[in-house]
Amino acid sequence: MSMNTFGRLFRFTTWGESHGPALGATVDGCPPGVAVSEEMLQVWLDKRKPGTSKFTTQRREADQVEILSGTFEGRTTGTPIQLMIRNTDQRSKDYGDIAEKFRPGHADITYWQKYGIRDYRGGGRSSARETAARVAAGGIARAVLADLVPALEIRGYMTQIGPHGIEGQRDMTEIDNNPFWVPSAATADKWAEYLGGIRKAGSSVGAVIELVARNVPAGLGAPIYAKLDTDLAAAMMSINAVKGVEIGEGMNAASLTGEENADEMHMGPEGPEYASNHAGGILGGISTGQDLVVRFAVKPTSSILTPRRTVTKSGEDADLITKGRHDPCVGIRAVPVGEAMMACVILDHLLLHRGQVGEGLRGKIG
Amino acid sequence: MSMNTFGRLFRFTTWGESHGPALGATVDGCPPGVAVSEEMLQVWLDKRKPGTSKFTTQRREADQVEILSGTFEGRTTGTPIQLMIRNTDQRSKDYGDIAEKFRPGHADITYWQKYGIRDYRGGGRSSARETAARVAAGGIARAVLADLVPALEIRGYMTQIGPHGIEGQRDMTEIDNNPFWVPSAATADKWAEYLGGIRKAGSSVGAVIELVARNVPAGLGAPIYAKLDTDLAAAMMSINAVKGVEIGEGMNAASLTGEENADEMHMGPEGPEYASNHAGGILGGISTGQDLVVRFAVKPTSSILTPRRTVTKSGEDADLITKGRHDPCVGIRAVPVGEAMMACVILDHLLLHRGQVGEGLRGKIG
Amino acid sequence: MSMNTFGRLFRFTTWGESHGPALGATVDGCPPGVAVSEEMLQVWLDKRKPGTSKFTTQRREADQVEILSGTFEGRTTGTPIQLMIRNTDQRSKDYGDIAEKFRPGHADITYWQKYGIRDYRGGGRSSARETAARVAAGGIARAVLADLVPALEIRGYMTQIGPHGIEGQRDMTEIDNNPFWVPSAATADKWAEYLGGIRKAGSSVGAVIELVARNVPAGLGAPIYAKLDTDLAAAMMSINAVKGVEIGEGMNAASLTGEENADEMHMGPEGPEYASNHAGGILGGISTGQDLVVRFAVKPTSSILTPRRTVTKSGEDADLITKGRHDPCVGIRAVPVGEAMMACVILDHLLLHRGQVGEGLRGKIG
Amino acid sequence: MSMNTFGRLFRFTTWGESHGPALGATVDGCPPGVAVSEEMLQVWLDKRKPGTSKFTTQRREADQVEILSGTFEGRTTGTPIQLMIRNTDQRSKDYGDIAEKFRPGHADITYWQKYGIRDYRGGGRSSARETAARVAAGGIARAVLADLVPALEIRGYMTQIGPHGIEGQRDMTEIDNNPFWVPSAATADKWAEYLGGIRKAGSSVGAVIELVARNVPAGLGAPIYAKLDTDLAAAMMSINAVKGVEIGEGMNAASLTGEENADEMHMGPEGPEYASNHAGGILGGISTGQDLVVRFAVKPTSSILTPRRTVTKSGEDADLITKGRHDPCVGIRAVPVGEAMMACVILDHLLLHRGQVGEGLRGKIG
Repeated sequence: MSMNTFGRLFRFTTWGESHGPALGATVDGCPPGVAVSEEMLQVWLDKRKPGTSKFTTQRREADQVEILSGTFEGRTTGTPIQLMIRNTDQRSKDYGDIAEKFRPGHADITYWQKYGIRDYRGGGRSSARETAARVAAGGIARAVLADLVPALEIRGYMTQIGPHGIEGQRDMTEIDNNPFWVPSAATADKWAEYLGGIRKAGSSVGAVIELVARNVPAGLGAPIYAKLDTDLAAAMMSINAVKGVEIGEGMNAASLTGEENADEMHMGPEGPEYASNHAGGILGGISTGQDLVVRFAVKPTSSILTPRRTVTKSGEDADLITKGRHDPCVGIRAVPVGEAMMACVILDHLLLHRGQVGEGLRGKIG
Repeated sequence: MSMNTFGRLFRFTTWGESHGPALGATVDGCPPGVAVSEEMLQVWLDKRKPGTSKFTTQRREADQVEILSGTFEGRTTGTPIQLMIRNTDQRSKDYGDIAEKFRPGHADITYWQKYGIRDYRGGGRSSARETAARVAAGGIARAVLADLVPALEIRGYMTQIGPHGIEGQRDMTEIDNNPFWVPSAATADKWAEYLGGIRKAGSSVGAVIELVARNVPAGLGAPIYAKLDTDLAAAMMSINAVKGVEIGEGMNAASLTGEENADEMHMGPEGPEYASNHAGGILGGISTGQDLVVRFAVKPTSSILTPRRTVTKSGEDADLITKGRHDPCVGIRAVPVGEAMMACVILDHLLLHRGQVGEGLRGKIG
Repeated sequence: MSMNTFGRLFRFTTWGESHGPALGATVDGCPPGVAVSEEMLQVWLDKRKPGTSKFTTQRREADQVEILSGTFEGRTTGTPIQLMIRNTDQRSKDYGDIAEKFRPGHADITYWQKYGIRDYRGGGRSSARETAARVAAGGIARAVLADLVPALEIRGYMTQIGPHGIEGQRDMTEIDNNPFWVPSAATADKWAEYLGGIRKAGSSVGAVIELVARNVPAGLGAPIYAKLDTDLAAAMMSINAVKGVEIGEGMNAASLTGEENADEMHMGPEGPEYASNHAGGILGGISTGQDLVVRFAVKPTSSILTPRRTVTKSGEDADLITKGRHDPCVGIRAVPVGEAMMACVILDHLLLHRGQVGEGLRGKIG
Repeated sequence: MSMNTFGRLFRFTTWGESHGPALGATVDGCPPGVAVSEEMLQVWLDKRKPGTSKFTTQRREADQVEILSGTFEGRTTGTPIQLMIRNTDQRSKDYGDIAEKFRPGHADITYWQKYGIRDYRGGGRSSARETAARVAAGGIARAVLADLVPALEIRGYMTQIGPHGIEGQRDMTEIDNNPFWVPSAATADKWAEYLGGIRKAGSSVGAVIELVARNVPAGLGAPIYAKLDTDLAAAMMSINAVKGVEIGEGMNAASLTGEENADEMHMGPEGPEYASNHAGGILGGISTGQDLVVRFAVKPTSSILTPRRTVTKSGEDADLITKGRHDPCVGIRAVPVGEAMMACVILDHLLLHRGQVGEGLRGKIG
């Protein structure tokens, strides 16, 4: 069922609305004995937090996470971990207008059509604030992964904003040096100028985010319907505003021939090596041990200052300008969210694998 | 858990290997009282069946489906429906070579790395033959949908093969007149020539498939982690060879501005109407009532006649030519598979919605 | 999976430890539009609250429930409802001794053996305080049921304490007039005297609780593995200290012949009527429309003042007296917990039924 | 959801009706590399097979199981295992009468009330024939357990038939020497006489079955809602005709005091030992390492030769004699079914534990 639950063995359920008293995540199935603290989680929440640059919403949320259960003396106990984040800066008055009017591109109309009732303040449950809870849950997943697979690394970054890709060579050491988490200083400058213009015009723009996980053990993924790529696709598509998900070559795979797409193999000193990674680290839904490469596209923020035509709850035509404090490009804050989801999926499959198959990965080569 | 199970209320579990005695699907949660027969299911299986044109594998499989349970006097009873398809043309000898060598681009190596044992005959469980079981399950879903939402239509077609898109205007009436299910007679001719060349060269090529569902009721989808688009993305990514999934604008949404992407609304005679459908019929994970538009890309078949470098189970370098009878473009037979998965997802969400919210969709406009 | 989750369509996940800052329940899948308030839930929590008579633990917990999400203007929205109860009276010092010693009959040793770490304060996660969260979730279920099946009533009461059953005729109007929720004033007096003696002796005693649901619609229950009785058995067995569960005749059914056990039917003015109810309202896992009758037995509280032999974490023999503030008979407070679980199971199956089968119950007789 | 699915990591879905062409179980999540064969499974099916003594139904079913998928060269591959059993002796004509009349005590009326359609032949889906599929799935579980925990033993036996318990000392070596699997030769003789009379009278009688698992590792069970006892209770209550389930002292726990019920501990040469086992091997939902002791009661077969009053589908009063070939005591054939379910639950929890916690049980004592 799991309407608001994600995961199989490592599961989290998020709860809360944009303008309610709090939101959070109930994390179940976390292995015991792992060191976690509010400080460790806060590092990740601070990456997603609004207001860190002029390119994100100016809503002020401390996004301070509290651990209410599931740890004892600084370690997980194997029982559910409740992570709560209080909402502090809810200017509900900004939303008076949309109690009646449905914002185009938002879930206002569909929540109404589905439930016949909606918390219209800030999008209620469909607000991207929900992703703060995912980032907190992802922080738990990262702590466990650090314990179980110390070499594993997960990194996300933007590779496109509007029509603009990365110019020149990628330099991964630049990711943390700019507000876009783009691996190129020169690109960051150009994007800053571009997005500055978008922001001033009260407009918005989409983006592409790429996620890479290194040192993922081979053998993760549970075919057929719990394939690693299936779960990654679901994880990313569940993030607000995402309209496309790719693994490895992604949509471009359609254009290739079998010869171009084959990732040839040869034996290296420590086992099989691949000459390329068109597959994005997954074959038949199972990890190969190569880098796991996932990309997703987010649409432009639907809240813009240009008036759009819409309808009202009472069935009248109307024009709507969405004021309030919005992100000109939600792709920026989607980076830590994507990373968190990737961490949760990998951990989940690690636990699933050792549950079904056993602790040691089984088939050896050579 | 659901390793081999798909769905929430309407669920199916597929089982079987390429070269075992049979494969099938166990369908659970099907509403009672719906007319189904083997003949009704066979229609869909015949679309996916190999050997229908020279562009698909020449393996001869009747793909005859048997209903072993769950119906009585031609109607579903609400109990599990077992759908079995016997494998008849298993030339296991074709696969002797790959008992030892891992085929690049196939799941041979990862199944080995995960499980330490694999049925190497024809890819075993990772063979695309598994999708026959999905098509059978999808046939059940279609029968139920025909009962519950008679106006609903699901259509799939190819929009790209290798680098070639559709030329000229789309003509949906042409879909059933060519082996590619492409909505353009002229394009079909060009593709036939192109793919003929690929086939003769012992090569292969990827494709893009588009799926459209019309007259889907508004209000389907269960946020946050059972969103309609999330489940569609998972459904498509679970299909063999799929590397990317898009809803509406898909990856292209990244390039748009908020003004371009907004689907403006106005009141029509029967409720809200949309000026465009960039969203692909889904907002906040819930259907809007517009056409549901999904696309997915499949990579080129990994079995090609050009030798590729690979490794063996015993850890030696080797070259491999994949003989056997293969599809030069698996995208063709992925069309009915995608349709089947879409039918299953829509039915599942219809049942979920009436379970949680109630039979009538709730929020009225106007 | 669902380690800490109960339910299928109407699901709740409980979290929290006896001596952490708070505990609660995350309720998912609740239908929208139902009036709920903290006051409505508090009524049920107050029934379970400790310290209401001298026969329950003297720990002082307000058990005040807060609704943190999932409602808007006093009605459910269909999104997750977070119910939080703060722990206020945690005298952790009472538990210093048991950090090292395992209390016989408690889960101290097994949590240690399973997880290698345990929050020993008050039993941590295995404390009966967890049941407060169930009662809160049950309050939501009751509110929804009141909306959907107004005639439905759920009542629990004790039918046995130690070796003492109910004397004389049952009088259901007496249930709320005594601390045992026993339907007999005379019995209540005798039990008070008996349990008073047990309490003074620092001993404890077990009990049997019976639950009856009236006006349950026929047709609820999803065979084979989600039968109504299966889910009720799981629900009751999951409650702390429960060692047996019965439906209708229960264990006594073994002694009966087919003639004695048959519930004969005849047509009444509004449909079939039954001459008896040995089945407890369930046939083949599906409700008949008769009263649903469930019983469960709780063992005596394991915390007693007589020293018992035990072992320590470091592997030494020891004697242990369990001080602290304990219930001489946990059966008393198990009554509202059982009622809550029954409400959740019935609602879940009501939603499941209308999801799979449809709003109206299908097969008519006559 | 899992209407017809049981289990979490080791899951099986049963399908099929009494008088359809076949029935079976789809087993998912089975660890790879375990030796299984049709012969190994047949041993268990033969224990449950009808017609093995005069005390079970004379319906002739070979109950021959076929493995259709999930194994390769005699070993499991980690993919779904399809187990099919063909129905061979379906005398549908025996059931003509009950197409219209509802048999008292059977699920005829409730399946009708739920689904509005039912396969009335032999009870259809609610027939005890479904349990053959469970026994097959249990055979897989036993094979895996033999691999993972070689010392583990599961034994079931009857402890009561009608009002008659076991007389004298129990002698476990006698279990396989009599048709009741009762651990006492003298008792078997008396029961044979008693049940012979019941059978000749066309009557039936209930029974109690006890199941014991020895050498279960400590630490299995996933609190709160996937406790080991919770899952065992669900497993047993899901078996046809079961009306009560007990763990350890069971319903009798109500009568005990805390002093009587405490299982005192002391250190033995290999760890903690218990002076008694009132708990039945489970504390807080987690196994202690003691014997796991479960009991369940089955009601008398509802098919008897004495006419009972009932109603018809068209709403008329009627009398009904249930002819056909029935078991005078279904408890006999419930023994292997209970054993199978116990094996599945234990294996499931073993996998869950090593998934969440890790391969080695964690907390050591001493």
